[in-house]
Amino acid sequence: MKVTDLQTPALLVDAAALEHNLATMAAALPGPRLRPHVKAHKTTELARRQAAYGHRAFTCATIREVEGMVAAGLSDDLLLANEVLDARRLGALADRARITVAVDSPETVEAAAAGGLREVLVDVDVGLPRCGCAPGDAGRIADLARSKGLEVRGVMGYEGHLMLVADAGQRRTMTADCMALLSRAAADVGGEVVSAGGTGTYADNTVATEIQAGSYALMDTAYGAVGLPFRPALSVLGTVISASPPSSAVQPPWVVADVGLKSLGMDHGNPTVPGATVWFCSDEHVTFAPDEPRSVKVGDRVRVLPAHVDPTVALHAALHLVDGDTVVETWPVDLRGW
Amino acid sequence: MKVTDLQTPALLVDAAALEHNLATMAAALPGPRLRPHVKAHKTTELARRQAAYGHRAFTCATIREVEGMVAAGLSDDLLLANEVLDARRLGALADRARITVAVDSPETVEAAAAGGLREVLVDVDVGLPRCGCAPGDAGRIADLARSKGLEVRGVMGYEGHLMLVADAGQRRTMTADCMALLSRAAADVGGEVVSAGGTGTYADNTVATEIQAGSYALMDTAYGAVGLPFRPALSVLGTVISASPPSSAVQPPWVVADVGLKSLGMDHGNPTVPGATVWFCSDEHVTFAPDEPRSVKVGDRVRVLPAHVDPTVALHAALHLVDGDTVVETWPVDLRGW
Repeated sequence: MKVTDLQTPALLVDAAALEHNLATMAAALPGPRLRPHVKAHKTTELARRQAAYGHRAFTCATIREVEGMVAAGLSDDLLLANEVLDARRLGALADRARITVAVDSPETVEAAAAGGLREVLVDVDVGLPRCGCAPGDAGRIADLARSKGLEVRGVMGYEGHLMLVADAGQRRTMTADCMALLSRAAADVGGEVVSAGGTGTYADNTVATEIQAGSYALMDTAYGAVGLPFRPALSVLGTVISASPPSSAVQPPWVVADVGLKSLGMDHGNPTVPGATVWFCSDEHVTFAPDEPRSVKVGDRVRVLPAHVDPTVALHAALHLVDGDTVVETWPVDLRGW
Repeated sequence: MKVTDLQTPALLVDAAALEHNLATMAAALPGPRLRPHVKAHKTTELARRQAAYGHRAFTCATIREVEGMVAAGLSDDLLLANEVLDARRLGALADRARITVAVDSPETVEAAAAGGLREVLVDVDVGLPRCGCAPGDAGRIADLARSKGLEVRGVMGYEGHLMLVADAGQRRTMTADCMALLSRAAADVGGEVVSAGGTGTYADNTVATEIQAGSYALMDTAYGAVGLPFRPALSVLGTVISASPPSSAVQPPWVVADVGLKSLGMDHGNPTVPGATVWFCSDEHVTFAPDEPRSVKVGDRVRVLPAHVDPTVALHAALHLVDGDTVVETWPVDLRGW
């Protein structure tokens, strides 16, 4: 099948860029040093490629992601790196998969035990105002978990506020400061796992025993400023459906493609169209002005680069792996929803 | 079923607010004066309620929406108010439904004819830089369509740039200016239909024979500034999964709920949490500071109001119609995708 045969909008993944990204990361963080985060692609076929590169343990953000990974047989070691107050759906899988959940409070410990889970990590606040207990409370949370019969594998802490720090030296220093907090908590908690990091700090974080990077596989344009060795692999294919009337009072000439804010993650702002300036997105449209007026015609195909990969993928039912103009494979985005 | 029994995040629609909105609009624009836009809710069960209020003709933004409406039997008169370059999937439904498509160029006329469609509207640029031919070209496009054997039902033109003009007098004047352009095109094109308007201008647009409003049913918070008689009906239910450590250097105290940018349309910015200040959203989290510190506890449920309704709905597989704490009905969001 050719790319031009696809119904638009359609999610495209450049096969060569994906392969480059997976190989580059596997060389830097081989096997269990990387616990790929599936939230970035929500696609078990892509996770299967990551497993083929030697990473058999995965990170998930939702219960649905854990369930889908188990259904796909990628169940060696699944971490739900998130807090849940109702763990019953996870507990129901405990005989078929190794599932570990993050806890950061008495309530989440209680939920893990009540839901029938066996293993937890203590989630520690290392500076991002989101989940995680105070570093000084981690030992107490671990003791509580053990008192409920849970195995405590160690700690996790996500330095998410550092992912886009552009200066490498500053990023490394700040990461070290965050990880000093996590190390202190790890000493109190015990266990072997120190899980942390992401695509932005994968090379800086030398404390974590495993890095939870996800974006590296498909790559956000925003990471371009950080100087990482990964390539943008994701785009949304659109068809140009309209061109501005020559008589329009609004100039320069613009065109409209059928890729809108229902097929693009918009939290990081407008997408990019190479060779053009994007004006705005509507539900099913992007209006943009080509640098070369009238160079883009009705019926042309365009590749739109979303500003944020993760939520873009979540809007599509399938992604198409492409090599130039050829569709190599089509994979269901099967980990959507909750 | 109770709201507290729902897995979170979950999309909630307040049944009373929805009923109020549908009744208010049906009183203002009875029967065929309104052609409800299904892109705002993507839910055939909700469209069925609109049909029960007397609106039997609908507006769609995607081929998938048209297909789903036909499958649901809501096929009396479906307008795809958008340009397509491949109309074959629509043409395949032509024996089961009345389907009209927008055209604004020789290419889109050709696609409509080649795809097996029978009826079109000429889409006219009335000032929003998106689709539509120049008003002075509409007659020529209509002639071309007729020469291809297509029935030309009239014109459409969307004054989308005026929807959020807050001053009612100014909005009315600007709407009249746009509709003067559309009227001139309508005179050249012929046919009976002048389709235009939206929730923001439904009471101002006195030229259109039918108004394409969609947002009125569930209502965006952004429309609050425009002084419309419709009520916000949509929220995303979340569970508070974490609270900030008392010792945190970041103050005031914050909490985290499991409603993030994968369950919220983010193009209009952050959501609102009543009684709190939202700091930021991550993929599966919203971090917010309650006005009353420590008033919100881990395990509490919260209702998060998205800034933009349409793309929020597109992220969910189902919506739950609720009356207070009771789930009255659960409807599949069955018009998603393309």
